[in-house]
Amino acid sequence: MQMHPGDWPDIAMSVLERVRTRAPRVHCITNTVAQAYTANMLLAAGAVPSMTTSAEEVAAFASGADALLVNLGTLDPERGVAIDRALSALSGQSRVQPWVLDPVFVDRSATRAAFAASLVARQPAAVRLNRAELKTLAAGQDAAVFATHARSIVAISGETDTVTDGTQSMTIANGHPWMAKVTAMGCAGSAVLAACLAVEADRFRATVSALLLFGIAGEVAAQHARGPGSFAIAIIDALAALDRDTVLRLAKVSA
Amino acid sequence: MQMHPGDWPDIAMSVLERVRTRAPRVHCITNTVAQAYTANMLLAAGAVPSMTTSAEEVAAFASGADALLVNLGTLDPERGVAIDRALSALSGQSRVQPWVLDPVFVDRSATRAAFAASLVARQPAAVRLNRAELKTLAAGQDAAVFATHARSIVAISGETDTVTDGTQSMTIANGHPWMAKVTAMGCAGSAVLAACLAVEADRFRATVSALLLFGIAGEVAAQHARGPGSFAIAIIDALAALDRDTVLRLAKVSA
Amino acid sequence: MQMHPGDWPDIAMSVLERVRTRAPRVHCITNTVAQAYTANMLLAAGAVPSMTTSAEEVAAFASGADALLVNLGTLDPERGVAIDRALSALSGQSRVQPWVLDPVFVDRSATRAAFAASLVARQPAAVRLNRAELKTLAAGQDAAVFATHARSIVAISGETDTVTDGTQSMTIANGHPWMAKVTAMGCAGSAVLAACLAVEADRFRATVSALLLFGIAGEVAAQHARGPGSFAIAIIDALAALDRDTVLRLAKVSA
Repeated sequence: MQMHPGDWPDIAMSVLERVRTRAPRVHCITNTVAQAYTANMLLAAGAVPSMTTSAEEVAAFASGADALLVNLGTLDPERGVAIDRALSALSGQSRVQPWVLDPVFVDRSATRAAFAASLVARQPAAVRLNRAELKTLAAGQDAAVFATHARSIVAISGETDTVTDGTQSMTIANGHPWMAKVTAMGCAGSAVLAACLAVEADRFRATVSALLLFGIAGEVAAQHARGPGSFAIAIIDALAALDRDTVLRLAKVSA
Repeated sequence: MQMHPGDWPDIAMSVLERVRTRAPRVHCITNTVAQAYTANMLLAAGAVPSMTTSAEEVAAFASGADALLVNLGTLDPERGVAIDRALSALSGQSRVQPWVLDPVFVDRSATRAAFAASLVARQPAAVRLNRAELKTLAAGQDAAVFATHARSIVAISGETDTVTDGTQSMTIANGHPWMAKVTAMGCAGSAVLAACLAVEADRFRATVSALLLFGIAGEVAAQHARGPGSFAIAIIDALAALDRDTVLRLAKVSA
Repeated sequence: MQMHPGDWPDIAMSVLERVRTRAPRVHCITNTVAQAYTANMLLAAGAVPSMTTSAEEVAAFASGADALLVNLGTLDPERGVAIDRALSALSGQSRVQPWVLDPVFVDRSATRAAFAASLVARQPAAVRLNRAELKTLAAGQDAAVFATHARSIVAISGETDTVTDGTQSMTIANGHPWMAKVTAMGCAGSAVLAACLAVEADRFRATVSALLLFGIAGEVAAQHARGPGSFAIAIIDALAALDRDTVLRLAKVSA
């Protein structure tokens, strides 16, 4: 089913309302820089975060979660083990537990790029990354081809965001330049995406919704901020308070 | 000595003033999510935080501290070793160094629950936890019985907080719903409790005071916040500025 | 060349403008408490932070960076290895990559003090520390003698900051008491120093500039803050927005 761009505000609000009502558990294997900010963003969205990367505990936390985030920032051997155990725990479950891959800085480290490629083979529901990371990870393929091969939704963040499942794609022109001036903003956005995937089985809908909601929260936040410091705080407030009127008024989605 | 509920504002302010004057060192073995927020909360209270979990260094930091916080969030092998060494360093001292146990998420991981039970046997001055964590850790005992057996003060946080030493108990009806929407808020509260125990030998007084001060700071903060993001910042400001008039006006303690 | 105190505002603004224009990459091996705050401060200054401490990756990140920060807070074996590999990667490069040593809490742990001394022998461009840390690290030498022996710029932070290269020294009387009430404030300041060293080859100029800009940002921030929580946010906004008029108006540098 093809969605009309004008449908997205209501689709996105429906996803957000389910996150708020169901309070999905999102387990995050993420970098130490991003942990606190990501947890606060998930709480603002209505989800329940957990963050352990301990090899002994991660399977229990991942199995009990409704979605998983795998973020490769500050990747160390402990995180490498944790990611493997968490994904194995997910594949052993009867119910579907979506997981998101955020291959931070794969363009900066060959070790990390190789590990990320091995994770793509384990079929994340969605991969969220910027253009430099996509170039490395997709090894020259364009985003739609990469999405088809990976059987994942690919969400590319930047001045405008693009979401593709290989067949259809949507562009989201929301957001604010300060989003690039706050550390872990992308990581937190990927966690919100995991929360949306936990409540919406159509992965394309979940992904466009997540990026749309997050971009709009950024625009609202900019109105209450004096710079990147206060912006980082204001976007948490904005996401927690986001309502249908605001989403309808600000959404800029196009096919 | 039985305390009258109306005495608590002055008791709590006396404890806070001693924290501000004496600037106790509080060493925190806490999860990576909570470290920065906990350190900022301790600084706002007037205490001096340290945070290392390195096996080589933790004994020196713990021995030199006036109180210790042991928080089980993101528990990894390194933290397990650090906790053991820090507690051994404390028990080798001639002076009393109180320590607080915050058994985060013991209801989510059997490994963590077993480790927490072994720590209770090493007699924390106080255990601070929520109802789900208490249910797991106390294995069905009620809070007062658990406190008696553990010879610890038990502080249960929730919509209202309860503090018991097994004989007497107090309920604190301060706080704000946004406190549950900020990651590490409970962890930071446990650190403030450790700071209060460092300056007040009566552990029940120190614990009721800590939870009362923290809850009131939350109420003050809510007046200056637009959502959970700005609330997380405002409670640090509020704790740093807390005065007797505010505590007298807002305190809701009952036996 | 001897600088006149009145020259510093323009020197500092020139350094800041180069950071904003060139966006130097600053790799930070820093403590988990400070990582997020440091990254946000670097972004506010105009630099691009990276933070991994993984032994497999740190050489690639350090080699690709324009400056390196080595901060000894929460020093664990992983960080010890990472520091060694990063410094080896730097010394193997043909171009000069300045690095900053921030020997956090060397006065609290003999292990850490010994490690810090070994790092001074590897010639940091600058060492930034407080008086207690200097006393331990310099083993009784005064700052100028220590700077001469270490062949490093020594920047001592406190109520007033002092910068010396052993021959000349400058005192900076900017800043605000709340800077001591925010965790990782000094760490973030050291990262800004690394960013300044990346764009200014005269290390003394770079160091005085960094401390001056950071102190002035603190003064501006205090005007927009209600306490240490909002101050920590406001200084990020202030650094991002800092302009020549403000620097000229507020700078207090003396020989």
